[in-house]
Amino acid sequence: MSDEESIKTRLKLRAVAVDTYRENVAYMHRECSVYRAEGFQALAKIRVGCNGKQIEAVLNVVDDICIVGPDELGLSEQAFQRFAEPAGQPVNVAQAEPPLSMDGVRRKIGGERLDYGDYQAITSDIAKGRYSKMEMAAFLVATGQNGLDRDEVLSLTRAMLETGVRLNWNEPLVADKHCIGGIPGNRTSLLVVPIVAAHGMLIPKTSSRAITSPAGTADTMEVLARTDLAPESLDRLVRMERGCLAWGGTTRLAPVDDMLISVERPLGIDSQGQMVASILSKKLAAGATHLLLDIPVGPTAKVRQMRDAMSLRKLFEYVGDRVGLHLEAVITDGSQPIGRGIGPVLEVRDVMQVLENDPQAPVDLREKSLRLAGRIIEFDPDVRGGFGYSIARDILESGRALAKMQRIIDAQGRQELQLEPGRLCFDVLADRTGMVVAIDNFFLAQTARLAGAPISRGAGVDLLHKLGDMVEEGQPLYRVYAEFPANFEFAHEFTRVRSGYRIGDAQSLRRLHTEF
Amino acid sequence: MSDEESIKTRLKLRAVAVDTYRENVAYMHRECSVYRAEGFQALAKIRVGCNGKQIEAVLNVVDDICIVGPDELGLSEQAFQRFAEPAGQPVNVAQAEPPLSMDGVRRKIGGERLDYGDYQAITSDIAKGRYSKMEMAAFLVATGQNGLDRDEVLSLTRAMLETGVRLNWNEPLVADKHCIGGIPGNRTSLLVVPIVAAHGMLIPKTSSRAITSPAGTADTMEVLARTDLAPESLDRLVRMERGCLAWGGTTRLAPVDDMLISVERPLGIDSQGQMVASILSKKLAAGATHLLLDIPVGPTAKVRQMRDAMSLRKLFEYVGDRVGLHLEAVITDGSQPIGRGIGPVLEVRDVMQVLENDPQAPVDLREKSLRLAGRIIEFDPDVRGGFGYSIARDILESGRALAKMQRIIDAQGRQELQLEPGRLCFDVLADRTGMVVAIDNFFLAQTARLAGAPISRGAGVDLLHKLGDMVEEGQPLYRVYAEFPANFEFAHEFTRVRSGYRIGDAQSLRRLHTEF
Repeated sequence: MSDEESIKTRLKLRAVAVDTYRENVAYMHRECSVYRAEGFQALAKIRVGCNGKQIEAVLNVVDDICIVGPDELGLSEQAFQRFAEPAGQPVNVAQAEPPLSMDGVRRKIGGERLDYGDYQAITSDIAKGRYSKMEMAAFLVATGQNGLDRDEVLSLTRAMLETGVRLNWNEPLVADKHCIGGIPGNRTSLLVVPIVAAHGMLIPKTSSRAITSPAGTADTMEVLARTDLAPESLDRLVRMERGCLAWGGTTRLAPVDDMLISVERPLGIDSQGQMVASILSKKLAAGATHLLLDIPVGPTAKVRQMRDAMSLRKLFEYVGDRVGLHLEAVITDGSQPIGRGIGPVLEVRDVMQVLENDPQAPVDLREKSLRLAGRIIEFDPDVRGGFGYSIARDILESGRALAKMQRIIDAQGRQELQLEPGRLCFDVLADRTGMVVAIDNFFLAQTARLAGAPISRGAGVDLLHKLGDMVEEGQPLYRVYAEFPANFEFAHEFTRVRSGYRIGDAQSLRRLHTEF
Repeated sequence: MSDEESIKTRLKLRAVAVDTYRENVAYMHRECSVYRAEGFQALAKIRVGCNGKQIEAVLNVVDDICIVGPDELGLSEQAFQRFAEPAGQPVNVAQAEPPLSMDGVRRKIGGERLDYGDYQAITSDIAKGRYSKMEMAAFLVATGQNGLDRDEVLSLTRAMLETGVRLNWNEPLVADKHCIGGIPGNRTSLLVVPIVAAHGMLIPKTSSRAITSPAGTADTMEVLARTDLAPESLDRLVRMERGCLAWGGTTRLAPVDDMLISVERPLGIDSQGQMVASILSKKLAAGATHLLLDIPVGPTAKVRQMRDAMSLRKLFEYVGDRVGLHLEAVITDGSQPIGRGIGPVLEVRDVMQVLENDPQAPVDLREKSLRLAGRIIEFDPDVRGGFGYSIARDILESGRALAKMQRIIDAQGRQELQLEPGRLCFDVLADRTGMVVAIDNFFLAQTARLAGAPISRGAGVDLLHKLGDMVEEGQPLYRVYAEFPANFEFAHEFTRVRSGYRIGDAQSLRRLHTEF
């Protein structure tokens, strides 16, 4: 059926000053003739059109002419902006058909394999905003459960890559790094990028914000600098500084991935196949040719068993090879948080201590960052295998990494934010004397989130002891910071019975650490 | 954390005249101090409380004081009604925590079996309105994909049964019937109920509205009578007439099922385990002790293979036995629509023709209804096995079924609606001469839906030929009725290339029909 045939009585467009975030909402008065004639249902999806443009929106029916009158069609703020037509413009309204590609989602629910064409249709409909949050949830769960096979992951990666802009840096070697996450405080990117960029290698890093963690690289970098860079400014600064630490969302690189993440986040779901497709499509879209992947393994990490880490690495390699990405995956120690701080401001403090060669700097964050930076530097054909680490260390110790970081911060737009942790704090104490033999990453991440991280930037957890430390009963294990009383209470309540630390004897620690 | 601790600055409650249907929406002004202090995100779920009551709602941020002012908290119409506090009442607002039972949903996504406690926690949170549509979609897909095992179906059935009111008729035999659906025009309930009730057996039938079909029993009955009966009136009329044909939604029997259906419908998903749990929990809640299930099988029915029908029957029997329901399942011919009309008004015409013993009455609808009614009558310990059919036929032929139906209609509240099909119509013609050898249930249901059924009651399809009929090229196969031009166009366009009929030779029909 053509658009002409679906044209209905015209209504006058109006902006309704309601912020509905990613969801387009349309408002029609209950007495509106179009609403009455069409038998629309409340919460139905409708299609608003004019001048060949179309937007789909969820219908809210209004009984107050202050919001919309019977001859008007209201759009919520973001929908009105997206539609980009003036108020008063005559628009057509019709029932939106459910996206055809939902048929593929239903087949996936039924247990079928989907092919490239299916994934292409789905990601294209998602990119056009034709999927409701409910439909995206159905897609995520259907493809998450029992995993996608590796060719489906490849198809999904390619399909997601097609929906956004793809950057081309016109250089033979564009490096990138990515950690699959799950380890609080693991802010190596803020060290790896300036080291690698100072070596002269191109590393235009785009990151996401936290999904289920207390801080993503973008959340932490935002304490120091703006990360929401337009594609043109990103391009200019990367060519000048050889590196950046930007938020991937505004660069329009993988819009579908961002939309799916906005559903994954509140649902708290995360699957291997989606993770691989999400990461690789984003890295390819950002123009990467060489990618170093960090896969932490540990009893409370995202990947718990070495064999799972190996199979994830194989999946990354399988898809990476077929999409033309030079990919190396390193499996790292994920048995405890990296560094001391968890939460944006506290993590920035750790990063700056390492860059400033402060003797107080957390050794594990410094060593891991040097190791990863060294591996990336060895992508350079002029660097002899095994020499990357010492090059990285020289760059850090000479202060060139710090200088590079300051230039990147200035180029992105230095933030004039306070760098102090939240004013409300409490300590969590050791319940016995002995050695710290286990630290629960998930528990500490959750504590930092309850304390308000990442939205509340000064909130988080500061670790005073790590694995292998001897502690006395009643000694503080970590300090929790919050900015708002409600967050303080949440975190305080959460840590009242458990601490997330296990204190035992040295033997039990040694057993845990044989793998690394 | 107690409610006291989460209390925030109080806002004044206000109704916002926006109809958001099943979704509670809260409106806060962008300049509201609570919004600013708490760092709420748009579309976040918040919890509004006062006087020990709580309601959760999705936050929309408003930039117009005509909608809500900075010291107000707006609730959409239904949310305001549900909360049932006066405008101006001071309310507290806090971030809503995601429902704890989502942990079970995530474990199900990960491939785990869930136990009774998990399902109980999930259905209880859904019943309290704590699941967003996105979270319900995740639950439906997670439990739909690859099915639930039979003990999980049993757990889910019991858990759903617990969330609503359960009727108790205080009689040893309370009959019910249910068809799993998928066959357009299959309105046997409107015949079975008056026949069985005229026999004197209690049959308080509650039905759902159409999910993916062009009419549910409730949609069709609504042409004749009100179906939205309060529990008290339902009770009174059932005791008087021995039967009813009510909509299950307003009886508060299985609120969770209704909420899940409101998500299944737009997603178009439907799984065996969910179907069994949904049907059996609803029938038990309605107080049934004896249930006859109709499982139609055919190439375009919901169940396509005899072996699938058998396994579905076993699943019904397994769960039915363990929840104390006397259950019989009959597998019926689902190779074509039943009767002639598809859509509320057209189906009512067929039903009334059968009740009135009109010689024009569709034979298949009459025979199937007598067969089902006969089986239910045989639940009566005083009826000899094999005599049910002839008792049912006597009741129908004597006019006692019609008289009973008229009394039920009057008791429920006779509708003064017009019984005419829509004024816009067109015929779909045979593209060759031969015998009708296949009719696509799904295609005809979709045609009727595009024509406007069930919301547009006079819309639908009227079959002029059925399987086995000889037709000439150019002869009409069926007539499509619509009430609105847009629907007419949709249905016309849909049937332009295909008719949903296959015309061939007599042999191919005979092959299809060996099973019944």
